[in-house]
Amino acid sequence: FQSTDVKKVTLIPGDGIGPEISAAVVKIFEAAEVPISWETVDVTPVKRPDGTFGIPQAAIDSVNRNLVGLKGPLMTPIGKGHRSLNLALRKEFDLYANVRPCRSLAGCETLYTNVDVVTIRENTEGEYSGIEHEVVDGVVQSIKLITENASRRVAKFAFEYAVANGRQTVTAVHKANIMRMSDGLFLKCCREAAEDFPNVKFQERYLDTVCLNMVQDPSQYDVLVMPNLYGDILSDLCAGLVGGLGLTPSGNIGIQGAIFESVHGTAPDIAGQDKANPTALLLSAIMMLKYMKLNPHAEKIETACLETLREKKFLTADLGGSARCSEYTNAIIERMK
Amino acid sequence: FQSTDVKKVTLIPGDGIGPEISAAVVKIFEAAEVPISWETVDVTPVKRPDGTFGIPQAAIDSVNRNLVGLKGPLMTPIGKGHRSLNLALRKEFDLYANVRPCRSLAGCETLYTNVDVVTIRENTEGEYSGIEHEVVDGVVQSIKLITENASRRVAKFAFEYAVANGRQTVTAVHKANIMRMSDGLFLKCCREAAEDFPNVKFQERYLDTVCLNMVQDPSQYDVLVMPNLYGDILSDLCAGLVGGLGLTPSGNIGIQGAIFESVHGTAPDIAGQDKANPTALLLSAIMMLKYMKLNPHAEKIETACLETLREKKFLTADLGGSARCSEYTNAIIERMK
Ligand SMILES: CC(C)[C@H](C(=O)O)[C@@H](O)C(=O)O
Ligand SMILES: CC(C)[C@H](C(=O)O)[C@@H](O)C(=O)O
Repeated sequence: FQSTDVKKVTLIPGDGIGPEISAAVVKIFEAAEVPISWETVDVTPVKRPDGTFGIPQAAIDSVNRNLVGLKGPLMTPIGKGHRSLNLALRKEFDLYANVRPCRSLAGCETLYTNVDVVTIRENTEGEYSGIEHEVVDGVVQSIKLITENASRRVAKFAFEYAVANGRQTVTAVHKANIMRMSDGLFLKCCREAAEDFPNVKFQERYLDTVCLNMVQDPSQYDVLVMPNLYGDILSDLCAGLVGGLGLTPSGNIGIQGAIFESVHGTAPDIAGQDKANPTALLLSAIMMLKYMKLNPHAEKIETACLETLREKKFLTADLGGSARCSEYTNAIIERMK
Repeated sequence: FQSTDVKKVTLIPGDGIGPEISAAVVKIFEAAEVPISWETVDVTPVKRPDGTFGIPQAAIDSVNRNLVGLKGPLMTPIGKGHRSLNLALRKEFDLYANVRPCRSLAGCETLYTNVDVVTIRENTEGEYSGIEHEVVDGVVQSIKLITENASRRVAKFAFEYAVANGRQTVTAVHKANIMRMSDGLFLKCCREAAEDFPNVKFQERYLDTVCLNMVQDPSQYDVLVMPNLYGDILSDLCAGLVGGLGLTPSGNIGIQGAIFESVHGTAPDIAGQDKANPTALLLSAIMMLKYMKLNPHAEKIETACLETLREKKFLTADLGGSARCSEYTNAIIERMK
């Protein structure tokens, strides 16, 4: 992706607190004079000509045109047959690598002070294949699908990410002692990718061991790459170490484009009350700027955000403060001046 | 299981540090005058008449006769085709429920002080079905098998365990938002079991959410029940919160019998040097005594063990102390006098 002049970016504000945290990001970006313009789209499923429900074509076209998107939290529509919209988006655009950096943030104290890990999750297959069937009454099989193609590209991505971000070590997380063929294939692809990156240290660890180690001493890990479900689990665990999903960004990267998103919920109980914490979405948007090679803007906003948190004067309620979303947003903007 | 006079119990000392930690338990049990006698067996796979390798028949017969076993750590033989011996034992005796209590222990400080959770893991199927195949070159499927029978019995077990141990809440841990049919079936069985136990609170949580919550505030959980792989992950995470696998017991419970085991490794680097920590195996043996309804003996040994840890004078090297295994063992025995 190459930055030119003003780039269009698709904005999916999302449900619940989505619109207000999106507005906060838009406001901060404006103040930072980020050279992008937003194209806001709605992804609420609509009935298609063939009777099925799906993401509106206009939203799909927007992402395909802009190749970069920012997304707030989405509700999964109630009722059988609806799959998670979050997943549908990852699938629709073949966003094969899910990147979630977790860092201890000054101002947001937890039991841990030294967390700085990045989980890279295969985002298209594994236990998320959606293939399931009832063999006979009371006997169900779900298929965990692992392909060489998907494993290879995410493994390569992890090493490239490590190099691009000055990281030392990539750990492949697996249960190949149990799932010898599927996780075995994933592991083989990681080993092969490792050979192409002799300057990055490579290690292999069992998922259970990583979970145990992670809560004892997260500083022993750096970049971790793993199949879909393991990434779901481990990224949430790591988010817990640094204060939860309200503070951790996420990027879904594809071959051509990428969607960045906060992965917390829609928090309907506080929606529309100017109480929400926009940090996760803002940090996701900062990841997006780096992806767009708008690093100076990214760093300016990041510094302001981290310093505002560190100062602790404008923390939102979820962080034990009493600032409104708008107050926190304005404090970040003030810092950028 | 009913206690009579002297009961025979199968002892599988295991590999690496297995023999010395088993000897420690045997010595403590003798000192506590526990009315059991040990039948020591070797489970190192032997070549069977049909050419395959398997657990020796004498070991199988011993467990089938005694219905109760205690097991140290086992090495998985190297070479293709060998599956984990630990798993083979669970399978051979249809030990369908894996119970792992994790409690903060005075004397063994971690970041957490208030952990008191019990993971109950379905122990026979799920991702551990062993069914895998390569569909075409580079495309592998592993089958996660969930059956109504196995889900029902482990769900029922979890509620019975909660009642028998004065526990308030059972949480079913799942990803039925992704694996709708398989985890959906597991969840349905938990819901149905819950109806038979109106005095136990029941709740449902996503695995990723539980991992996040667990590292932030483990006190919000009590008994947790889940499919096989999730139990593998979550039990290790919880063990990490209280100091690792050297401190957490485990029981594999079947319809007729049960095998209790420490789930740490064989630690070949310190084997035979009187340095190993026998706590996990001892706590497993104490679980075993409770299972055998030898509660007074269980409590006597447990109190001595916990007080010895709390006193911190005889901690082994893994806990930051310098006591030998034999010194720690003797300290526990002294306390029982
Ligand atoms: C919302 C849910 C379907 C999703 C997942 O399981 O991947 C979420 O937990 C995540 O991590 O993005
Ligand atoms: C040794 C290994 C096969 C085993 C498992 O994966 O179940 C272990 O991690 C456990 O938790 O008992």
